[in-house]
Amino acid sequence: MTERLQPGATIGILGGGQLGRMLAVAAARLGFKTHIFDPSPLPPAGDVAHAVTTAAYEDTDALHAFAGAVDVITYEFENIPTLTLDALEHLAPIRPGREALRVSQDRLVEKEFLRGLGLTTAPFADTPDMPALAKALSTIGTPAILKTRRFGYDGKGQARIHDATGAATAFSEMKDVPAIIEGFVAFSHEVSVIAARGTDGSVACFDPGENVHRDGILHSTTIPARLNASQRTDAILIAANILNALDYVGVMGVELFVTTNGLVVNEIAPRVHNSGHWTQNGCAVDQFEQHIRAIAGWPLGDGKRHSDVVMENLIGDDVDRVPEIATEPNAALHLYGKAEARAGRKMGHVNRVQK
Amino acid sequence: MTERLQPGATIGILGGGQLGRMLAVAAARLGFKTHIFDPSPLPPAGDVAHAVTTAAYEDTDALHAFAGAVDVITYEFENIPTLTLDALEHLAPIRPGREALRVSQDRLVEKEFLRGLGLTTAPFADTPDMPALAKALSTIGTPAILKTRRFGYDGKGQARIHDATGAATAFSEMKDVPAIIEGFVAFSHEVSVIAARGTDGSVACFDPGENVHRDGILHSTTIPARLNASQRTDAILIAANILNALDYVGVMGVELFVTTNGLVVNEIAPRVHNSGHWTQNGCAVDQFEQHIRAIAGWPLGDGKRHSDVVMENLIGDDVDRVPEIATEPNAALHLYGKAEARAGRKMGHVNRVQK
Repeated sequence: MTERLQPGATIGILGGGQLGRMLAVAAARLGFKTHIFDPSPLPPAGDVAHAVTTAAYEDTDALHAFAGAVDVITYEFENIPTLTLDALEHLAPIRPGREALRVSQDRLVEKEFLRGLGLTTAPFADTPDMPALAKALSTIGTPAILKTRRFGYDGKGQARIHDATGAATAFSEMKDVPAIIEGFVAFSHEVSVIAARGTDGSVACFDPGENVHRDGILHSTTIPARLNASQRTDAILIAANILNALDYVGVMGVELFVTTNGLVVNEIAPRVHNSGHWTQNGCAVDQFEQHIRAIAGWPLGDGKRHSDVVMENLIGDDVDRVPEIATEPNAALHLYGKAEARAGRKMGHVNRVQK
Repeated sequence: MTERLQPGATIGILGGGQLGRMLAVAAARLGFKTHIFDPSPLPPAGDVAHAVTTAAYEDTDALHAFAGAVDVITYEFENIPTLTLDALEHLAPIRPGREALRVSQDRLVEKEFLRGLGLTTAPFADTPDMPALAKALSTIGTPAILKTRRFGYDGKGQARIHDATGAATAFSEMKDVPAIIEGFVAFSHEVSVIAARGTDGSVACFDPGENVHRDGILHSTTIPARLNASQRTDAILIAANILNALDYVGVMGVELFVTTNGLVVNEIAPRVHNSGHWTQNGCAVDQFEQHIRAIAGWPLGDGKRHSDVVMENLIGDDVDRVPEIATEPNAALHLYGKAEARAGRKMGHVNRVQK
C-alpha cells in the first residue's frame, strides 16, 4: 500500500472548472492544500485553491514546476494530452493512472475494454471510412449514433443516424475525425454508479442514482434509482469489475442503461462525475472527498447515504432561478462562480434533500 | 431591505482562522469570492480564499484598500479593535453591525444588555477594585468566577474563586484588567442556539445543541439537545429576542444554561460558533452559509435538520486520531489546515451523523 499523504501536503489538480473547484474544497476539508493547473485565467477552482498555475497543457516548464510543487497529481477531465502526462509522470504520482486515461479517452478502446471484461455495451463498430460505416449500419441497424472516438462530452461530437443518406451526411460532417457507430439500446432509464478504489485495492460505491438528460446534458439525478435488488447488486459488481481491471485509484463514474435484458454499460469517466454531486448532501463523505481520500492513500468512506436527494443541474439561464431556489426549504445550492451564463454552460446545481 | 449581493461579489472577512475558512468555503458555494484580512501570514482561511491581505488591524492603509476591494465586511471573532472598525465603517457595510460588537466585547455591558431584555443571567457584579469584589462576593457567594471584561475565550481570562483569600489572589493576578464577578449557576447542562437574522428582519434558528466542555474548551455538541418542548421554545424565543434587540444581521451563537428555574443566558457570540459546526452535516444550509446568506441580503435557510449529529472537536493531539476516525462509517472530518498541533489548539472537528 502506498504511503498515506499527511494533512499539509499539496494536491495538484489538472483543470480548474467546477469539478476541480469541488475537489479543492474537499481537499481543504481534510487539511490538504491544492494547486490548480489550468490554461484559462481565473478558473473557478482558483477561488478556493492555495495556488494556481495559468499555463498551456503543452508548457513543459510550467508542468515541471507544477509537478515539483505538489505531492500527487489528479485531474478533473479525461482529455488530458499525452504530452502533458509524459511531462509529469516521473515527477509525481498521477492518480488515476494512465491506463484509465488511455481507455476512456477513446470510445473504441473503451468499448473493446468493457467487452473484454464480459460486460454488455451497445452494439458498436469502428468506422474508419464510409464503406465501413455502411457495412456496420447493415448489422447494427438504425437509429444509430455516430460518435467521435475522442473529445466528446455533454452530447458534443455526436450525430444521430436514421438512414443511409443521414449516415453519409453525418460522416462527411465529422471531417475525417475518427469515429465509431453505436447501435440503439432500448433502455427504460439510465443510472450511474459513482465508484471509488483506494491504493490498497478496496472498493466502495455510492448508491446508484437515476439520471435524466436534456439536450444531451445531465439534467437531474435522483437517489435512490429505480432498481430491483439484483440490478442494484449487478451495478455495483460491474463498477468494481472495471475499477479492479484498471488497477484504478480514485473515483469513477460508470453510466449504465437499464434494460429488460440486464444492465448495459454506456460509458465510464475516470473522475468525479456530475451524477455524483448529490453525495455532497446525502453522505458523510461525498464523491469529492472520496476521490481525495483515494489518491491520498486514505481509507475510503463507505458510501452509505444518510438522506435521499434529487440533484438538479443549473445550466445557462437556470441560474436566474437561484433567488427562488434559495427560498426553498432543504435545497442546498452549489454555484460555480462562473461570471457568464452561456447556453449549455453548467453554472451550478441544487441538491434537494428529500428526507 | 438591503440590496441582495449577486454571485461574483466579494465578501471581506476579518480573521482567517477556521471560522473564516469555513465561511470562505460557504461563500464560494454561493458563487461569492472572499478576501481574508489577517495579521498572521498563511492563515488557514487563505487556502480557500480568492485573496488575502496580511496586515495589522491597525494598518489603516491596508484596511482602506481591503474595504475598497470588497462588497461587504464580516468577521470571525468579536474582539476587533475599535480603530479597525473606525477605518472600515464608511467604506463598506460591516455585518453584524457595531452595536453587536460593542455589547459582546465587554462582559459587563453584555450582561446588563441581557438583563435589560428581561432575560436571566448568572448573578454578576462589576469589580473595579478589591472592596467592590469583596462586597459582591458577600451577596453572590462562592464558588464564583472572576472574569476579565474583555478578550476572554475558551476559558482564558477566568479564575474560580472559593473564598476571600482566593478572591484577593485572583484579583491581584488580573493586574488591574477590568473584570466582573459571576455567581455560580446550578445547571444540569448547557445548550446553545445558533440563530440568524436577515437584512429583512427575518429570524431562523437551528435546533439547539447540547454542549460538553473540557478544560474550558468545547468538547462536543449533540443534536438534539435534552430539552422539553417548552424549553425548546424558550431557547428560540430568547435568541430571537436578542437578535431583534440588536437589529442584528448574521449568525449568532447563544449559550444557555438549563436549570430547574428555566434557561439562563451564559453568553452570546456575534459570529458563527463552534457549537454550530454540526450543521455542516445535519442541514441543507449550514451555519456558515446561513451567515453568508444573511450578510449578503439573501433569504435565510429554515434551519431544519435532516440528520442527528454529534460534533466532537479535535484539539491538540486529538488530530493523531484522524487515521482512525477516517475509517469510521458516517464520520465527516473537517480539518483546519493548521501545521502545528499545540495543546488546546483547535485543529479540526468530526461530525458523526447519527441516522
